[in-house]
Amino acid sequence: MSKKTYVIGLDLGGTNSVFGIVNKSAEIVQSVSVPTKGHGTAEAYVKNCVEALNPLIKKVGGIEKIQAMGIGAPNANYYSGCIEDAPNLEWRGNVPLAKMFQEALGIPVVLTNDANAAAIGEMTYGAARGMKNFIEITLGTGVGSGIVVNGQLVYGSDGFAGELGHVIIEKNGRDCGCGRKGCLECYCSGTGIARSALEKLSMSRKPSVLREKLSSALEAKDVHFAAQEGDELALEIMADTGRRLGEACANFAAFSSPEAFIFFGGPTKAGELLMSHIRNAYDENVLFVYKGKAKILLSELDGASAAVLGASALGWEVQ
Amino acid sequence: MSKKTYVIGLDLGGTNSVFGIVNKSAEIVQSVSVPTKGHGTAEAYVKNCVEALNPLIKKVGGIEKIQAMGIGAPNANYYSGCIEDAPNLEWRGNVPLAKMFQEALGIPVVLTNDANAAAIGEMTYGAARGMKNFIEITLGTGVGSGIVVNGQLVYGSDGFAGELGHVIIEKNGRDCGCGRKGCLECYCSGTGIARSALEKLSMSRKPSVLREKLSSALEAKDVHFAAQEGDELALEIMADTGRRLGEACANFAAFSSPEAFIFFGGPTKAGELLMSHIRNAYDENVLFVYKGKAKILLSELDGASAAVLGASALGWEVQ
Repeated sequence: MSKKTYVIGLDLGGTNSVFGIVNKSAEIVQSVSVPTKGHGTAEAYVKNCVEALNPLIKKVGGIEKIQAMGIGAPNANYYSGCIEDAPNLEWRGNVPLAKMFQEALGIPVVLTNDANAAAIGEMTYGAARGMKNFIEITLGTGVGSGIVVNGQLVYGSDGFAGELGHVIIEKNGRDCGCGRKGCLECYCSGTGIARSALEKLSMSRKPSVLREKLSSALEAKDVHFAAQEGDELALEIMADTGRRLGEACANFAAFSSPEAFIFFGGPTKAGELLMSHIRNAYDENVLFVYKGKAKILLSELDGASAAVLGASALGWEVQ
Repeated sequence: MSKKTYVIGLDLGGTNSVFGIVNKSAEIVQSVSVPTKGHGTAEAYVKNCVEALNPLIKKVGGIEKIQAMGIGAPNANYYSGCIEDAPNLEWRGNVPLAKMFQEALGIPVVLTNDANAAAIGEMTYGAARGMKNFIEITLGTGVGSGIVVNGQLVYGSDGFAGELGHVIIEKNGRDCGCGRKGCLECYCSGTGIARSALEKLSMSRKPSVLREKLSSALEAKDVHFAAQEGDELALEIMADTGRRLGEACANFAAFSSPEAFIFFGGPTKAGELLMSHIRNAYDENVLFVYKGKAKILLSELDGASAAVLGASALGWEVQ
């Protein structure tokens, strides 16, 4: 066991890059945020980040106290350590970000996508502690996933395994941002839930507070709040969303037969209004050999710090 | 590396139990077949099998030359070493077959299901040599699968992972033997292909040699032979089957992003009449990040000996 006391986690988002220095009790003891954009080059970005980080590193006793750094980022490839053609970042092509931070800081740096970081965070600090086989499903703007088999994250042959948000659940269904149709995330992401609200408003004649919102402003949390107030249409949308997630997970079980499916992200704040439907649809649809086995759980990672903690957890895996 | 020269493979089928003593070049140097049924108890079955095996073991130089035995069997649980409630065998409940053979032979014995054994065989002796991430899909009476991630077979939390034949591909589709509807195997197993023939005969007005067969006698190989002769209806059935397999594999890629999908079993004898449609549908349907990556391959295991070789390959994994 290493005598190093800390890891650094970086949650690299489209707008902000949030750094946290994290101890073994999952406490973020130091934190700083740097805008992700406006540095021009990736080299300048890394330089400016390290300048912002250095005073924090000093406060915890210097770089020799730090085991490694983990980065959670969009379009991140664990194997290559590169960010590959991220449409929402200002760098083009493949950016070897892990190598660049490693050279600037002098500690090992690993990088993976946000959902994989969440899964590792869940295994290290959250609801998946002690589990060797589980699937983390992140519901946000999209649907992401991190799959753990035999205690290891599944990266696949190319570093991009675990895109369960892009399993097609409706042939010729809704248009997806990936260019195809009917992906799970078109129905069950935050955006997908808002689209379901529009569909429901078009199909049903029931009154609903959701009819009083501008279509373009409808969000998943409006549906959640309306459902909490007993709005029938909103309750139906939560039920449909949960049913689709439960049916999808029943198919995922046939792949890796996990101990648990763990749900993370904004839409899970609806709690049992969503989770009960996931559980029911899962039980109804899963193959008999898997029945009654996998738990359907809420993430135990705190939403605000989960991304930084998840990324930092990668650092503990580095030998 | 062990100095042991051989492993024993047992292909435990509903009718026959075929034993092979296999060397490191994947040659079955000794072989014997014992009827699976008619022994009364599992204890008597093991005793009779070992009596049949002993002369063969003697011929290769005694049990000390043999590293381990691997068993491929229906309803087999790798973790427990048990066959659990196999409907087509005469033993009820959980039979600890691995332990029973281990005690009778004095060597380690491991057990897994047929499709997993085929995947391990493929990795040891076949088309997946050198691969760390691939999915073996077996087409027979049903559709089975063995999933390899990071060079390890995926057994999941309960030993029953990798039942991709029971992913639901058609909501409210054809009745499946598992009690649900629309599983992949209802369309793409040998039996599924025969069902597709009946559906096609009902839907189409085209002439076809398949119309001259008794419905109950229609088999996948009739479709394959008719397709080879240019029968239009049979060609359409092969195209539909391949399309469904390709679409399903496109979804499976989102799970483990394998290097290859390897197809094994009777219906694959149709070769390009089937495989070309799998490839086309896969390319058309897979998420852009995976495009052009995974190979769609035929098994390189010889059909007649594949099950014994696959089971034997498990033996090499035992330390």
